[in-house]
Amino acid sequence: MSHYPSSILNLIRNLSKLPGIGEKTAERLSMHILRMPIREANELAHSILELRENVRLCSLCFALSDAEICNICGNPERDAALLCVVGQPAEMVAIERSGSFRGLYHILQGVLSPMDGIGPDNIRIRELISRIEEGQVREVVLATSTNVEGEATASYIAECLKDYPVEVTRIASGVPIGGELKYVDQVTLGRAMEDRRTF
Amino acid sequence: MSHYPSSILNLIRNLSKLPGIGEKTAERLSMHILRMPIREANELAHSILELRENVRLCSLCFALSDAEICNICGNPERDAALLCVVGQPAEMVAIERSGSFRGLYHILQGVLSPMDGIGPDNIRIRELISRIEEGQVREVVLATSTNVEGEATASYIAECLKDYPVEVTRIASGVPIGGELKYVDQVTLGRAMEDRRTF
Repeated sequence: MSHYPSSILNLIRNLSKLPGIGEKTAERLSMHILRMPIREANELAHSILELRENVRLCSLCFALSDAEICNICGNPERDAALLCVVGQPAEMVAIERSGSFRGLYHILQGVLSPMDGIGPDNIRIRELISRIEEGQVREVVLATSTNVEGEATASYIAECLKDYPVEVTRIASGVPIGGELKYVDQVTLGRAMEDRRTF
Repeated sequence: MSHYPSSILNLIRNLSKLPGIGEKTAERLSMHILRMPIREANELAHSILELRENVRLCSLCFALSDAEICNICGNPERDAALLCVVGQPAEMVAIERSGSFRGLYHILQGVLSPMDGIGPDNIRIRELISRIEEGQVREVVLATSTNVEGEATASYIAECLKDYPVEVTRIASGVPIGGELKYVDQVTLGRAMEDRRTF
């Protein structure tokens, strides 16, 4: 590798840090970036910079957003009485893709994982309770993954909410147990949303 | 996909244009870039911009270079009497990696390929002849690939150089070192047999 000019070596080194991209792939991508139209190369670079400049967390639901309030929270047609709780933004995207939910979301930005030192104070549970205390929410759909951490997180939240005047439901286990929510097909996800049951 | 903010969609779209990167991989890479330290994300973006700003072709050998003259052409310890001719920068890098050559290079920036409309005037053959006319080169090693185009290019250059006072050689073809004879293709084996040498 060291026989390339330093500008190429830098790019190879930086691309190699990305998951699933080894040195050979990084070399091939760098050669491609060197040959692609300069406009496209600039667009690629600027889209990385803009991503990091523009993307923040929605101040209501903690979804990834380009603005203070995300598109979903800011949409008056969404049902503010229905709140779907997920661990990660990609899980929200998966549910949106299934088209089976017309309420709002709450992204915990993680799930309980004592092994990794992630407790209730490290994820957005307090903010979830504040939203419920505002009184608009009638039903909380717990849609964390069905793996151990996701189930534990759902149980914990159900316990926290038991004294509030909200119905707490869990997505139906049409979702394969042990599966990662973001990889589930949209028909299965849609069914799981329809069949949600009282927790 | 359309449920992500536009900054994320832009990056996914731009990454998807790279060879071997589909939409799913682009989504996964974008999420990683969103979470990596901001310093690393900026470095990645700037290394793309710097690549396109800094990398040019060496004005002597047409290798990829950060400067007017590349590191190899500018190195007084390299043997200027030995000139190795290759088609692409990656071939030069492969030979440098082998550590088997201490002379200079000439990168043709292509090989003859009448099917693709690439003739002698489209690659750096005229510049190669100019370098030889300067009189310093004693031996030209033709190290283009051993496929049809590479062989044709080597033959054409050998013909062009036959009236110049330089020795013209071709890299040896044969059975790869460490290879199982039974898996070697018959053309290679035939060539290895023809070119057999005294033990």
